[in-house]
Amino acid sequence: MIADTVHPGAEPGYNANVAAIIKLALDEDIGRGDLTTEATVPASAQASAAILQKEEGVLCGLPVVEAVFAALDPRVSVEALAEEGSYGGRREVARITGPARSLLTGERTALNFLQRLSGVATMSLRASQSVEGTGATVLDTRKTTPGHRVLEKYAVRVGGCRNHRAGLDDAVLIKENHIRAAGGIGPAIIAARLRVSPTQRVEVEVTNTAELDEALSAGAELILLDNHTPDELRAAVAHTAGHAQLEASGGITLKNLAEVASTGVNFISLGALTHSAPSIDFSLEVL
Amino acid sequence: MIADTVHPGAEPGYNANVAAIIKLALDEDIGRGDLTTEATVPASAQASAAILQKEEGVLCGLPVVEAVFAALDPRVSVEALAEEGSYGGRREVARITGPARSLLTGERTALNFLQRLSGVATMSLRASQSVEGTGATVLDTRKTTPGHRVLEKYAVRVGGCRNHRAGLDDAVLIKENHIRAAGGIGPAIIAARLRVSPTQRVEVEVTNTAELDEALSAGAELILLDNHTPDELRAAVAHTAGHAQLEASGGITLKNLAEVASTGVNFISLGALTHSAPSIDFSLEVL
Amino acid sequence: MIADTVHPGAEPGYNANVAAIIKLALDEDIGRGDLTTEATVPASAQASAAILQKEEGVLCGLPVVEAVFAALDPRVSVEALAEEGSYGGRREVARITGPARSLLTGERTALNFLQRLSGVATMSLRASQSVEGTGATVLDTRKTTPGHRVLEKYAVRVGGCRNHRAGLDDAVLIKENHIRAAGGIGPAIIAARLRVSPTQRVEVEVTNTAELDEALSAGAELILLDNHTPDELRAAVAHTAGHAQLEASGGITLKNLAEVASTGVNFISLGALTHSAPSIDFSLEVL
Amino acid sequence: MIADTVHPGAEPGYNANVAAIIKLALDEDIGRGDLTTEATVPASAQASAAILQKEEGVLCGLPVVEAVFAALDPRVSVEALAEEGSYGGRREVARITGPARSLLTGERTALNFLQRLSGVATMSLRASQSVEGTGATVLDTRKTTPGHRVLEKYAVRVGGCRNHRAGLDDAVLIKENHIRAAGGIGPAIIAARLRVSPTQRVEVEVTNTAELDEALSAGAELILLDNHTPDELRAAVAHTAGHAQLEASGGITLKNLAEVASTGVNFISLGALTHSAPSIDFSLEVL
Amino acid sequence: MIADTVHPGAEPGYNANVAAIIKLALDEDIGRGDLTTEATVPASAQASAAILQKEEGVLCGLPVVEAVFAALDPRVSVEALAEEGSYGGRREVARITGPARSLLTGERTALNFLQRLSGVATMSLRASQSVEGTGATVLDTRKTTPGHRVLEKYAVRVGGCRNHRAGLDDAVLIKENHIRAAGGIGPAIIAARLRVSPTQRVEVEVTNTAELDEALSAGAELILLDNHTPDELRAAVAHTAGHAQLEASGGITLKNLAEVASTGVNFISLGALTHSAPSIDFSLEVL
Amino acid sequence: MIADTVHPGAEPGYNANVAAIIKLALDEDIGRGDLTTEATVPASAQASAAILQKEEGVLCGLPVVEAVFAALDPRVSVEALAEEGSYGGRREVARITGPARSLLTGERTALNFLQRLSGVATMSLRASQSVEGTGATVLDTRKTTPGHRVLEKYAVRVGGCRNHRAGLDDAVLIKENHIRAAGGIGPAIIAARLRVSPTQRVEVEVTNTAELDEALSAGAELILLDNHTPDELRAAVAHTAGHAQLEASGGITLKNLAEVASTGVNFISLGALTHSAPSIDFSLEVL
Repeated sequence: MIADTVHPGAEPGYNANVAAIIKLALDEDIGRGDLTTEATVPASAQASAAILQKEEGVLCGLPVVEAVFAALDPRVSVEALAEEGSYGGRREVARITGPARSLLTGERTALNFLQRLSGVATMSLRASQSVEGTGATVLDTRKTTPGHRVLEKYAVRVGGCRNHRAGLDDAVLIKENHIRAAGGIGPAIIAARLRVSPTQRVEVEVTNTAELDEALSAGAELILLDNHTPDELRAAVAHTAGHAQLEASGGITLKNLAEVASTGVNFISLGALTHSAPSIDFSLEVL
Repeated sequence: MIADTVHPGAEPGYNANVAAIIKLALDEDIGRGDLTTEATVPASAQASAAILQKEEGVLCGLPVVEAVFAALDPRVSVEALAEEGSYGGRREVARITGPARSLLTGERTALNFLQRLSGVATMSLRASQSVEGTGATVLDTRKTTPGHRVLEKYAVRVGGCRNHRAGLDDAVLIKENHIRAAGGIGPAIIAARLRVSPTQRVEVEVTNTAELDEALSAGAELILLDNHTPDELRAAVAHTAGHAQLEASGGITLKNLAEVASTGVNFISLGALTHSAPSIDFSLEVL
Repeated sequence: MIADTVHPGAEPGYNANVAAIIKLALDEDIGRGDLTTEATVPASAQASAAILQKEEGVLCGLPVVEAVFAALDPRVSVEALAEEGSYGGRREVARITGPARSLLTGERTALNFLQRLSGVATMSLRASQSVEGTGATVLDTRKTTPGHRVLEKYAVRVGGCRNHRAGLDDAVLIKENHIRAAGGIGPAIIAARLRVSPTQRVEVEVTNTAELDEALSAGAELILLDNHTPDELRAAVAHTAGHAQLEASGGITLKNLAEVASTGVNFISLGALTHSAPSIDFSLEVL
Repeated sequence: MIADTVHPGAEPGYNANVAAIIKLALDEDIGRGDLTTEATVPASAQASAAILQKEEGVLCGLPVVEAVFAALDPRVSVEALAEEGSYGGRREVARITGPARSLLTGERTALNFLQRLSGVATMSLRASQSVEGTGATVLDTRKTTPGHRVLEKYAVRVGGCRNHRAGLDDAVLIKENHIRAAGGIGPAIIAARLRVSPTQRVEVEVTNTAELDEALSAGAELILLDNHTPDELRAAVAHTAGHAQLEASGGITLKNLAEVASTGVNFISLGALTHSAPSIDFSLEVL
Repeated sequence: MIADTVHPGAEPGYNANVAAIIKLALDEDIGRGDLTTEATVPASAQASAAILQKEEGVLCGLPVVEAVFAALDPRVSVEALAEEGSYGGRREVARITGPARSLLTGERTALNFLQRLSGVATMSLRASQSVEGTGATVLDTRKTTPGHRVLEKYAVRVGGCRNHRAGLDDAVLIKENHIRAAGGIGPAIIAARLRVSPTQRVEVEVTNTAELDEALSAGAELILLDNHTPDELRAAVAHTAGHAQLEASGGITLKNLAEVASTGVNFISLGALTHSAPSIDFSLEVL
Repeated sequence: MIADTVHPGAEPGYNANVAAIIKLALDEDIGRGDLTTEATVPASAQASAAILQKEEGVLCGLPVVEAVFAALDPRVSVEALAEEGSYGGRREVARITGPARSLLTGERTALNFLQRLSGVATMSLRASQSVEGTGATVLDTRKTTPGHRVLEKYAVRVGGCRNHRAGLDDAVLIKENHIRAAGGIGPAIIAARLRVSPTQRVEVEVTNTAELDEALSAGAELILLDNHTPDELRAAVAHTAGHAQLEASGGITLKNLAEVASTGVNFISLGALTHSAPSIDFSLEVL
């Protein structure tokens, strides 16, 4: 379980996948045991260590750091010294106390999570700032690190963007291949509606105005416009006239994000938030 | 099991961790089922799809693509059309055939692995080319994506660099905290030697010439020089005079790699190979 | 993986939970081994067996029978003789062939799944027939057998009803306690919208007209009316005037289902579909 | 581990299967997280809740409720207010205290176990009362809910009946197919005796008097009479004359149970105890 | 699944624990990969290898060897050249064919199982020969290698002895501490009878004649005599006069086994069969 | 996690394999529950018990005893009364306190680990004493009990010997088949060096002087001499003249160990340490 954080509502709660990736990460690093630490550090030695942020960015992942040490050794305690989600530069973000061996053994795994999640949150902050005032919302995608989906989507929210679907099972997104198999946009939408809960909207990807019309007349409430230019997006917004929400996707970067947002689309999905966010550097220093 | 590839010896064989991260990745994406595909694509439909490389780089991860589809549905077959480890631009790298549903359901997970591993291999190729002719070898570190250690280290080898230790259990690397706990460099080396197999060398991290001398006189065969300038590295090389192998680490990027390599150190470890390699874009197109 | 069936789109595909409950079921029955069969049946004996439906109902679960035997012994083959989802009385529904030991060892586990899922599908057929022509749709709930959620929801669809949300993570359903914690219906809806994908509607449970008004003015698109009488439901339908979809829930049985459906609500959720469906009897006879 | 209850000896202790079905149930309901609760309830909020029994029946499953919340969040405490195994009507049976989020997230899973187990215990109470004074004992069967075997057999004991074998590995029950494969009742009994521990009796199923004689002369100590009429059972009891214990099975319901018990058989096995017990309604109310 | 062997009825079938210990054994040996083999043997190389028995003994474990290679690489085939359970000296017992890498990687794990199980079977053969003609049967105990229970008990049967209970859940064995807690031998037997299936006898351990009398009058059918001298055993046999079966236990070795067997007890349990059987040497030679 | 012991550095820390074998061992013994204890001992009863060493030997495994009871029931506490690694005869080595049921249920599993590990440590002590003063070090091998590798290698260290490689992934040991596949000793060494970390030496097995020369000229630093006579070993030591370390292996027992050690080899590996160490007897007595 990921413990409480300072941002109520932001953090994921009990989650089998998060527990699994943490265990997998510890096991792959520790294997049959931390040879160096077992040979040189007495089992009874206690220590404190500082986790230091080494460069500017959004702090994200302290609950995962806690969970890593809790999985390794429940005697370790983690005290947050900076707020999850806060932006800052060089600073101590947490103080860790417990058996010296466990601090040393868990260090790398904890930092590997922290540097990645803070990177995702930092890029998400930049993206959300780029679209401020436009009415558009930036979403993530399913282009996440395998096994890290729930954590990276949490980091996206911490950074101020919103999540698109979490997986293939919590939303319908009809693409070209589904349309062809179902025999058209209309039949595909009908088939999907019967399959899913009434709590779910059906989203359809379209590539031109004819398909957009077909989707609108089939009652699609959310339409994905893939690889459209800003002009094409503007035209689609006008054509749709509010009868559905529109999502732009494909070929979008932090650089052209503001321009895309200005076209009037409701959502912009950005794979780079999770597959190309540079890491933020952190280190652990035993005191 | 990761299947055979065209590079004998490069690919990892049976490995519990690799099977685990693939299963975790599929489960987090599929959850309770691929709603869209189940609703629109008949269970009996067969299809073929092309995996397309969209930008220049080293192809790495085809055995993982095979393993992903084998875990999802053993009826899917994957035929390689480009050689694992080969460098290329836009091209079809594999042809996949089987139940249409399984191709669509496994697509994103397979590509998420492929884009990341090809990115790591591509950066490793660049790094290995930077040091050509210097006698230095570029190594990776433990700053890998949690749960992806074995795969990313495989990508490093495919790209032409070599691996440092795989985890805390297959090599001793004595750092500052271990030295302090053991009461000095000498005692730490002795304690470690007793703990490990005679097949293993003991590596020690030193920060100055006094410590270097202490490590040399304690018989260290491999010495890590952290955050040294090129001049300091050159001095250490001269001082060591071949009595131990030297590894440079810290603050090294693709830009200064050649300069560091020219100092005469034997090894240079580069965390960026695994934590900062940009992804290579791939897509899957149903034919 | 649940294998193909004759109803395209109905059956669940690859699913970690289904594999897990099947393995758990086999393990709890077999334990350290089938003593009787190992002692009396030669390992080399081959056999065929018929699965017989013993009473009227909807056949549901053949793909699970296949999956059970595939998990136990891949040499066993299952041939369907009746169509998944078909209604019938006493009949042979499948023929199973393979090592005699495996047929006997897997028999009880396979039948335990089949009798339950066919029971759920049969009750779902009755429920869907009760509301025919009313415009209302019958939904299931989360009152499913622990560990059997995906399978029972599949049986509900096979029987002709639709699924409500699959779990706590694929839809928002705001109830009294959430409203109180969030400080009102409006704030709760806003908080939920920010948390979830744009593909998801937000559903709110209301208990009276004041709350209904509050939900409508906060833009709720789906509203749950718990434990309302038919007259109250009719009034709510009139009051809502199509500005949201309405779901009736609580105290509904096969007996009063048609009356509830006649009130004009869009959805009726019925826990009894999964927690009170009587089993349909099946047996396995070695030929 | 299922915690202590007020009925010494009744509850199952440490059991890998029980832990597994609880984890599976939580995971299938929670998936990637409880969206509604995470969005609306602060992580720091504490709450108390009452578990209310809504209709008459035997309370069974409080230790499982405890185990569900312990698996979800060890900070939650469960206080029993009614005795496990006690019969009652509308009443508060337990008080739960802890983080508000965890109470809401675990509610449905806990209740889904409780309603089912209380249903099984209630039907078992009815069955055990039906045979009072006859000398016959009512047993359960292996027709249990897949994955719930240990729990449902516990509920059977709580309700006052006894358990038949727990699985294929803790008792020998020779049926028609085993007899045919072994070449007769005698050879089958001999083969089974050699395979099992001397702590185990061998049970044989017979269909007529000739087989009954064969089983008796082969020294069977427990004989199953399948689908016999009361008159046939009475005749078998007379014929056996105490040289073996007799079990009646097949076509027995709560209605004809007393009549079957009056025939003088020692045991009556009743699949309906576990596959057809109606649920007892419970709810959880946050205070 | 342990595959068919030449001894019908002897081998364990599908068993979750056996699959688990095999996977655990492979994972602990292979870890992140077989470095030597991956570096030196091409992935495409095929090979055959002979498994050679190097000293006299009972061959036991070929089905496990098959299962080890099947778990490692399903392309490997194992052909038995000697009969499971046969006694022999230096000989080739199996021929293995498949990818050369997999033969080398699985070799040690397969042999580690084979040498141990053949050791247990060989000692069991000796023990069963020692009691021939006495009417006593030699049983194993629960003093087995942790995680190897099912396999070692299989080896005991292959060697010609019989199994005592397989675990704490398939038989009742009341010892001193249970008697004290229950308030006497009689109450303990009654409590146990109510808990277990009618297929199970209740066994009680007694230490003197008074307790033996108490057990007999409480109807115990199986009585364990711990650490009795041959004379005491003979006296107990006479005293019991066939009203219960007797098991001798404690301080028994291959040396005094025949003497103990001559006392007239029905069963003799021998922990040494599983905790002290010397290994039989085997090797694998690539051809 | 294996808890702290009195020998700093000796015990293994967090280790997924150790947790797995302990869970497997408990599950195989307990299965669906400890029938006898559940039936006779009240859930609320508390007790203390002594673990008694019954014969002379090195105590090894107390941390595993702790871990077994912690996995079974965290309310049980274990107090060490003798030092892990100490040599002694009949004595109380630990006092265990907690719920009476858990003490009885965990007893056999805990003792089965303790008797085996103490046996390995005792034989290791004897072996290390045999070579005292010779300069040779005794190593274990990979001939360990499947699933117990980490624990048995820990026992070897506790007894005073050292460990050879822990698995196929933490060291290269080139044998005949690898040499043939690679095309000679030299090419095999080169291929292996490229594959592994610079922290690892490459070991080669040779069978005669020609191969020894080839290995030396290829720069092998560690050479395995399999099945050499003492005279051959002495010759090899002289021939090698300190240019590599030498390991003797094959056909070595406690009896000829001193003679082998006197030849001047650096290491002697002894499979018997783990596959043939006789158990040390322990019992648990409830006080």
